[in-house]
Amino acid sequence: STKQSVIKDAHQALGNHIGQFVPAHPIAGKEKAGAAHAEATLFANRLVILTPERVTRIKPLQAITQMWEAIGCQVQNMTPQAHDAAFAAISHVPHLTAFALINAILKQPDANEVLALGGSGFKDFSRIAASNPAMWRDVLLCNRADVLKQTQYLIDSLQDFIQAIEQQDEARLFRLIDIASQTRSAWQMTTRDNNALL
Amino acid sequence: STKQSVIKDAHQALGNHIGQFVPAHPIAGKEKAGAAHAEATLFANRLVILTPERVTRIKPLQAITQMWEAIGCQVQNMTPQAHDAAFAAISHVPHLTAFALINAILKQPDANEVLALGGSGFKDFSRIAASNPAMWRDVLLCNRADVLKQTQYLIDSLQDFIQAIEQQDEARLFRLIDIASQTRSAWQMTTRDNNALL
Repeated sequence: STKQSVIKDAHQALGNHIGQFVPAHPIAGKEKAGAAHAEATLFANRLVILTPERVTRIKPLQAITQMWEAIGCQVQNMTPQAHDAAFAAISHVPHLTAFALINAILKQPDANEVLALGGSGFKDFSRIAASNPAMWRDVLLCNRADVLKQTQYLIDSLQDFIQAIEQQDEARLFRLIDIASQTRSAWQMTTRDNNALL
Repeated sequence: STKQSVIKDAHQALGNHIGQFVPAHPIAGKEKAGAAHAEATLFANRLVILTPERVTRIKPLQAITQMWEAIGCQVQNMTPQAHDAAFAAISHVPHLTAFALINAILKQPDANEVLALGGSGFKDFSRIAASNPAMWRDVLLCNRADVLKQTQYLIDSLQDFIQAIEQQDEARLFRLIDIASQTRSAWQMTTRDNNALL
């Protein structure tokens, strides 16, 4: 989930062989790890980000690209820095937020009764909160500068809502929701199939 | 989604007939409204909250309870106050948060490129951000005191994460994620089928 820290470690471990190392991040996964949760089609039609550096040699890069494509993935290249910044926003902070929301519910005295009222919206929203704690501790710490920056964006965004609600500013609150709703309604997951549209 | 404001309006509109009014909140819905999104099994096995008052007469309460049960729902009674407080935590603030997270992503210069990297975690987490803006403006304003209180709990919870990440406190960060992960892993949606377990 983070690339800069992996690449730093790889430089240490691989030394002169670093040119053969092609960091990859398949955008596919589940909230549960391990062989018991394996799924044969997990990578089908999914996006894979490769983050080659200047030292990465062309032959291993081509071979790895072909490998991911052979199992049905759409391959995209990014710099490690751009990768980590983008995934802080689109993945790491959503996970952190799902964890934080569960913990916020647990702050009330009748937390179990409140949790029992959750419907399908809560179910989907909070699914990623069931993710592996050790893995996500490491992701959030490895990518901490970008994660902290994006978490602040989220808090700023929450403050926009708080202000509109406190001031009972219907027009502003509508606009804040409407831009989010329109953006999410138009969004679709990037897959091999719809890549022609990008 | 909120009951106190509806009941207040009902008292105005119904006058002496208020005893025949049985406010209900079925915990079922979709991010999209209208006949084109109708689903015959939408209420099957779902929870319905009724919020009768002292003035509510027993006959209409029984009739409405039987109606919801006849279409497959599990009926639970709550006070309007407890209902609105609980749903601020389990539904309204999750919606507000999903809206705010999309808006936080839109704060970056390369927002479209970042959004294109979202996978199934982002897809599920953000689904409720596609909800109807006019409806959710009204829900958030009608229930503003509880919504503001729960939003502050969320921000406090986010600050716990920020502090643990800034201090690189691995043990504390693990605990913050672990309690959320265990809670969400153990959670299941209340349905007519599993009500025996409650």
